[in-house]
Amino acid sequence: MIRRSFPRAFSAASAFKGIPLNGTTINDSVKSAKYAVRGAVLERSMELQRKMAAGEKLPFETIVPCNIGNPHACLQVPLSFHREVLSLCISPNLAADHPHLFKKDVVERAQHYAAGLTGGVGAYTNSQGIPAVREEIAAFIAERDGHPARADRIYLTNGASEGVRILLTCLLRSGGKQDGLLTPIPQYPLYSASLTLLGGTLVPYHLNEGASWGVEMDNLRTTLAAARANGTEVRGIAVINPGNPTGNILAEEQIKDIIKMAVDEKLVILADEVYQANIWKKGASFSSFKKVACDMGYMGEDGDDRLQLVSFHSTSKGYFGECGLRGGYMEVHGIGAEVRAELYKLASLSLCSNTIGQLATGIMINPPKPGDPSFATFQKERDDILSSLERRSIMVHKALNKLEGITCNEADGALYAFPRIRLSNKAKLAAEAEGIPADEYYCLKILDQSGIVLVPGSGFGQEEGTLHFRTTFLPAEETMHETMKMMAKAHEKFMDEHRD
Amino acid sequence: MIRRSFPRAFSAASAFKGIPLNGTTINDSVKSAKYAVRGAVLERSMELQRKMAAGEKLPFETIVPCNIGNPHACLQVPLSFHREVLSLCISPNLAADHPHLFKKDVVERAQHYAAGLTGGVGAYTNSQGIPAVREEIAAFIAERDGHPARADRIYLTNGASEGVRILLTCLLRSGGKQDGLLTPIPQYPLYSASLTLLGGTLVPYHLNEGASWGVEMDNLRTTLAAARANGTEVRGIAVINPGNPTGNILAEEQIKDIIKMAVDEKLVILADEVYQANIWKKGASFSSFKKVACDMGYMGEDGDDRLQLVSFHSTSKGYFGECGLRGGYMEVHGIGAEVRAELYKLASLSLCSNTIGQLATGIMINPPKPGDPSFATFQKERDDILSSLERRSIMVHKALNKLEGITCNEADGALYAFPRIRLSNKAKLAAEAEGIPADEYYCLKILDQSGIVLVPGSGFGQEEGTLHFRTTFLPAEETMHETMKMMAKAHEKFMDEHRD
Repeated sequence: MIRRSFPRAFSAASAFKGIPLNGTTINDSVKSAKYAVRGAVLERSMELQRKMAAGEKLPFETIVPCNIGNPHACLQVPLSFHREVLSLCISPNLAADHPHLFKKDVVERAQHYAAGLTGGVGAYTNSQGIPAVREEIAAFIAERDGHPARADRIYLTNGASEGVRILLTCLLRSGGKQDGLLTPIPQYPLYSASLTLLGGTLVPYHLNEGASWGVEMDNLRTTLAAARANGTEVRGIAVINPGNPTGNILAEEQIKDIIKMAVDEKLVILADEVYQANIWKKGASFSSFKKVACDMGYMGEDGDDRLQLVSFHSTSKGYFGECGLRGGYMEVHGIGAEVRAELYKLASLSLCSNTIGQLATGIMINPPKPGDPSFATFQKERDDILSSLERRSIMVHKALNKLEGITCNEADGALYAFPRIRLSNKAKLAAEAEGIPADEYYCLKILDQSGIVLVPGSGFGQEEGTLHFRTTFLPAEETMHETMKMMAKAHEKFMDEHRD
Repeated sequence: MIRRSFPRAFSAASAFKGIPLNGTTINDSVKSAKYAVRGAVLERSMELQRKMAAGEKLPFETIVPCNIGNPHACLQVPLSFHREVLSLCISPNLAADHPHLFKKDVVERAQHYAAGLTGGVGAYTNSQGIPAVREEIAAFIAERDGHPARADRIYLTNGASEGVRILLTCLLRSGGKQDGLLTPIPQYPLYSASLTLLGGTLVPYHLNEGASWGVEMDNLRTTLAAARANGTEVRGIAVINPGNPTGNILAEEQIKDIIKMAVDEKLVILADEVYQANIWKKGASFSSFKKVACDMGYMGEDGDDRLQLVSFHSTSKGYFGECGLRGGYMEVHGIGAEVRAELYKLASLSLCSNTIGQLATGIMINPPKPGDPSFATFQKERDDILSSLERRSIMVHKALNKLEGITCNEADGALYAFPRIRLSNKAKLAAEAEGIPADEYYCLKILDQSGIVLVPGSGFGQEEGTLHFRTTFLPAEETMHETMKMMAKAHEKFMDEHRD
């Protein structure tokens, strides 16, 4: 016994010569995870910001953050009703002391929440979230889909990201299992980074750029079969609809096909539906996976787990754009009581999501109705934001398509354009010389010249041999023309300087 | 090639006969993780609540949630200045439209934050948190400790829990390493649960109940050596000061000893200091690990990583008690640039912590100063809360010590009592018959009789052969006498019914 422990003790001790936590001894999975939306290009933009603040003269007047869907940072105005209710939930005395400060429906909504919140916003809530808010969300889903929804299947989270993390933590087994998730390429890098962190395998299925970034079922099936033949236990499929970064909107027929395949192949569907209120294509509409599943007869009753579906929503997008408040929820469907209890436990570990984000989620999906004192203002604010976003989406892809070597699909939904760029060999060699991908090289040069922060396509994944970047169309409408001019100028300069 | 893939494909396919996500196929680490603070006893209390709501007659009038440090749920009143600033940050128009609604310092503070927040509270912030708030925190730490602090070493988080998760994710290497963390027993179960989830090993060091739950250095060293001899790569030590659930406050000499050991043995110190403003023992004061480290000459300069220390703070405790807002921060000390960049990346993955929690953290550590218009109100509110908590801490441990079979150390700090209970063989056998630990059995019986929600000691860890429970002393002072009477009655009944 003692003998056996000697060599072990020795090898353990020798590992402690160094520092416990440095770039070499840190968890490798953390090092390997990548999240380009806040990566090298953003880093450089912060450096440029510091230079400007220090008085250095740069070729532009301002940094334009097109790297991230952060509408308020681009000066989108918050919705009045929503903010007033939140203020009142934080300071209930304001209404008591000043009875005419807020409209009646604002006061009533705040009182409605207060009635269900022992201790107000300062108390931990139920780990799944405030029951009154979950009831509101269930009513919203039921009305949206025309099918019942249950408050006890809803988990409020700090943004959608936390929901994805919790769900994947349950789905991907640790301890050397080769569990995989079918993930669209291009994808939002939360998925790739979470898979790396959790030791899961990303099984990429490529969206078809030539067909508005649609899902190709044949390709999906082939990909799945190949991954399984290779030993990966593919246990789920992520779908982002409307697409990030692609802007594609799935038709009900496509959703049906994906659901059929998930049922046949025993895959949990992770439906990332955070852009459901951002639909720009004329005649298009959003159908949730939950709606289509219920239409197909998969009602998610207890004991029926033929289809397992988890859908995610967030306060950060839509016309609400409240990124900073970190509100969101996931709805589970066909997920049994045992797993729901584990999801509850994981949520409990961080006690609960933040109360203001929870309330913001409730107000988002239950805004003022016609006849309510706040309705007219709300309606105008919402429509102004949505119509302006729609105009900007068209401006951006039109302007990009005019540039040499750039082709860009229309953004049918969401907040991004994901154009393809064709770079010269000279540009590619210059990137290689700097040891960075060619799309990152391009984005850094555009930033240096224009102040516009883009994200290289490699951060989202792209077909081998192609190059892209992602840009939001969130800069304020009155500056958008100027921004696209800066972009065009920087692009032309880049192309001229890198001709073969 | 084709041949080789056949058996693999077969074995993979056979694993997919079942449902992807159920109680059997879920990640085992999730199933194994335990978090008793919101465990079986709380579940039962929610069931009782439903029964009461349905009109069922129970032996008590109300559920008393002593399971969790959730002051506002026990009707602790929020601080006026703090809430007013937050309301104004959410609705800046309130001050513009109604110039006399808020005191001058409220308006100025809100404006100070607004100046550093492009897009206000609705925008994602820097992943580490709002620079203006990190500057405030650095100033607070510098003043508290008498040593410099840097804003770029501070990471704002959704409560302290998120900081602990992020740090442990970096520290505990995945892929079959046997990385361990020295963890006090009893401990706050966030540590045990996080270790289970991340595949780390909990290396328990027992606190000495006979010496006010103090840390014993000899025991700590022996524990470390034994764990290393067993092949565990112990990479860090968690210290909770003031202690949860123990209420122990570490003296500077003890902190010095722990720091010396961490330096000698290359351990990262995780200093959980969320109860730093909850000091009840006469003459005692809080010393941070950072202060003592700097006193000893470990200044945390870049390149000097002899000591690696991460300390955690939260808006949820102290006299602030804003649990629902989910604010908090971690300060890293002696952690190099490479690791700080990885911490930043992990924070980026969830974009940023919620803005209201971030601002609440700033206001918490930078309250009104003498001379400010809000100071008198703030001072009274703070002192009322602290002096009442102090009285309640004494009431609770005195009342508990009067009960048959119960002994309880004084709570020198924090918000809990952690009494030891001695149960009869009859009680232990009854628990065994129900297949649950004896302390859980006891807590369930007390709940059924009194409505008081306790947490079994087994949820925190306890010396083999001993039994405990944790209770907060947060019920409102005017009801505390009645609560302790209910507790005494339920306890006496339990003892009478379980005599050997």
